[in-house]
Amino acid sequence: MALAIHGGAGTILRSQMTPDLEREYRGGLETALKAGWAILESGGSSLDAVERAVISLEDFPLFNAGRGSVFTHAGEQEMDAAIMDGNNLRAGAVAFVKNIKNPVGLARLVMERTEHVLLAGEGANQFAEQIGVKAEPDEYFFTEHRWLQLQEAIAEGRVQLDHANSPPYEGGVAAASADGVVLSDAPPRKPIGTVGAVACDKNGHLAAATSTGGMTNKKFGRIGDTAIIGSGTYADQTCAVSCTGHGEYFMLAATAFDVAARMKYKSLSLEAAAQEAVDYLTTINGEGGLIAVDTSGKVTLPFNSDGMYRGSIAPGGAIEIEIYKTQ
Amino acid sequence: MALAIHGGAGTILRSQMTPDLEREYRGGLETALKAGWAILESGGSSLDAVERAVISLEDFPLFNAGRGSVFTHAGEQEMDAAIMDGNNLRAGAVAFVKNIKNPVGLARLVMERTEHVLLAGEGANQFAEQIGVKAEPDEYFFTEHRWLQLQEAIAEGRVQLDHANSPPYEGGVAAASADGVVLSDAPPRKPIGTVGAVACDKNGHLAAATSTGGMTNKKFGRIGDTAIIGSGTYADQTCAVSCTGHGEYFMLAATAFDVAARMKYKSLSLEAAAQEAVDYLTTINGEGGLIAVDTSGKVTLPFNSDGMYRGSIAPGGAIEIEIYKTQ
Repeated sequence: MALAIHGGAGTILRSQMTPDLEREYRGGLETALKAGWAILESGGSSLDAVERAVISLEDFPLFNAGRGSVFTHAGEQEMDAAIMDGNNLRAGAVAFVKNIKNPVGLARLVMERTEHVLLAGEGANQFAEQIGVKAEPDEYFFTEHRWLQLQEAIAEGRVQLDHANSPPYEGGVAAASADGVVLSDAPPRKPIGTVGAVACDKNGHLAAATSTGGMTNKKFGRIGDTAIIGSGTYADQTCAVSCTGHGEYFMLAATAFDVAARMKYKSLSLEAAAQEAVDYLTTINGEGGLIAVDTSGKVTLPFNSDGMYRGSIAPGGAIEIEIYKTQ
Repeated sequence: MALAIHGGAGTILRSQMTPDLEREYRGGLETALKAGWAILESGGSSLDAVERAVISLEDFPLFNAGRGSVFTHAGEQEMDAAIMDGNNLRAGAVAFVKNIKNPVGLARLVMERTEHVLLAGEGANQFAEQIGVKAEPDEYFFTEHRWLQLQEAIAEGRVQLDHANSPPYEGGVAAASADGVVLSDAPPRKPIGTVGAVACDKNGHLAAATSTGGMTNKKFGRIGDTAIIGSGTYADQTCAVSCTGHGEYFMLAATAFDVAARMKYKSLSLEAAAQEAVDYLTTINGEGGLIAVDTSGKVTLPFNSDGMYRGSIAPGGAIEIEIYKTQ
């Protein structure tokens, strides 16, 4: 049995953290780990454990998912989430849903109640309404620090992912042309802000779940990697993976599936496969990280950014929580 | 140099085809092949060639993409498309856009004018408007056979993918529950309806593009595999792949990326990797097929359904077009 979680990767520097804030973040991670672990310890499934852990992270206002979601350009909070059951290769996902307290739970309902994998936008909200998922008022999601982030981003004319403090994004090229409009007037800054969980239960069954509030000041119905099976979220009978970072690169690299592919086709260990997948991201200028678990309960949490909110728990209940790079 | 295209896979039986209709389909495929090939022959890029071939297929009303798109439950035509340039690993995609004559062209603009990979829904249409892509009126897309398909699907209470004539879908399970709503009152039938192209140009650069009008009577903002990089569309410096079939399975299997992964990590040939990817789909009850090309200009077009509208063209200009299974 094993459980690992993340609360986003990116520019997370000790110099910008206060002891109080760090304690809050660590508390949020610990609460989520304990919630998921309680399910595994009592014999529950990895699917239930990752959903429970991600719900806990969505409810925690400091992470960019659920309650703490950032604001879009239009001042709305649009959320993406996905969940995948590796044992039977089923998955569900939602993209830019609004007023849903726990998008990961709605993703699970897409998996269990529809013949589809991904529902998006108003249609996904209509589905939620029809199956009786209660909508939360805007006030539930409002957090002042996210609102201030939007005002700042609008003032600076940029799209911003959470934990974004580093130099301008260099890949992908939002090239202005003579007749062109670009998505932002200034280059967006680097990532990130996502939560996720992976678990192996007592039967060796694997599951992964990921949830995000997207990018501050985003426009045009952008869908990132979180809701994309194979990119931000993936689980099969080899491994379960949840990613966080600059989503577009994870989409181009199919990073979550890539970890499984390297294990299956190159016979690599979980750790080696995950490290290779992150190294590949680095070669294409993709910033972020991932958490992964295999059927033996091994866990790995590689990233190429300055930090990643992350934690894991192993039999015996030993909890490990880290934020920065470790030597 | 090489170019291959498809116009969808599924239950395509000789017994249900008239000579006139078959001639029309073959004509549509031939026109698209010639349009794409003219670009490759004059030294153009694989990216331009696949876009041109898919535009030709979108403009041809018998295929379920662009002009021939099927109707959603609400009587609308929502289209998905993606394009990927294997040489520099860039991609663009759109999901459920409306009134766009050539969704593949809009996908390319997402790639070239934004820092994003996937835009969906109204946001994608707003992007199109802002960069000056002209909206076509509903009448342009209206075809009587698609409208009749919707009325029939509504009457029978099912979601239908194009070329769907076989027994009810057995996987994925749209389980009704006590308080549950399911996406369709009767089981949806099997796939399909998509167009796509893959090409290798004189520099050995690869590209892939895919476009679809989705499923007749679909609801809830469902996004299938077409717009998902790694699932329905993928290209890198190893191969380019475009898929067609029951999209949800291609999403769970990350089929397009899987072909590349099996080539890169298992050192398989294009043909062997593509066949393995389709065989894997078969094991999880996924129906459909794919077209793929490698840097040497080899082409393969495997599928596990009764038929796939498909064609390819090789140096010397020899055109091969097939619809049914061949022995």
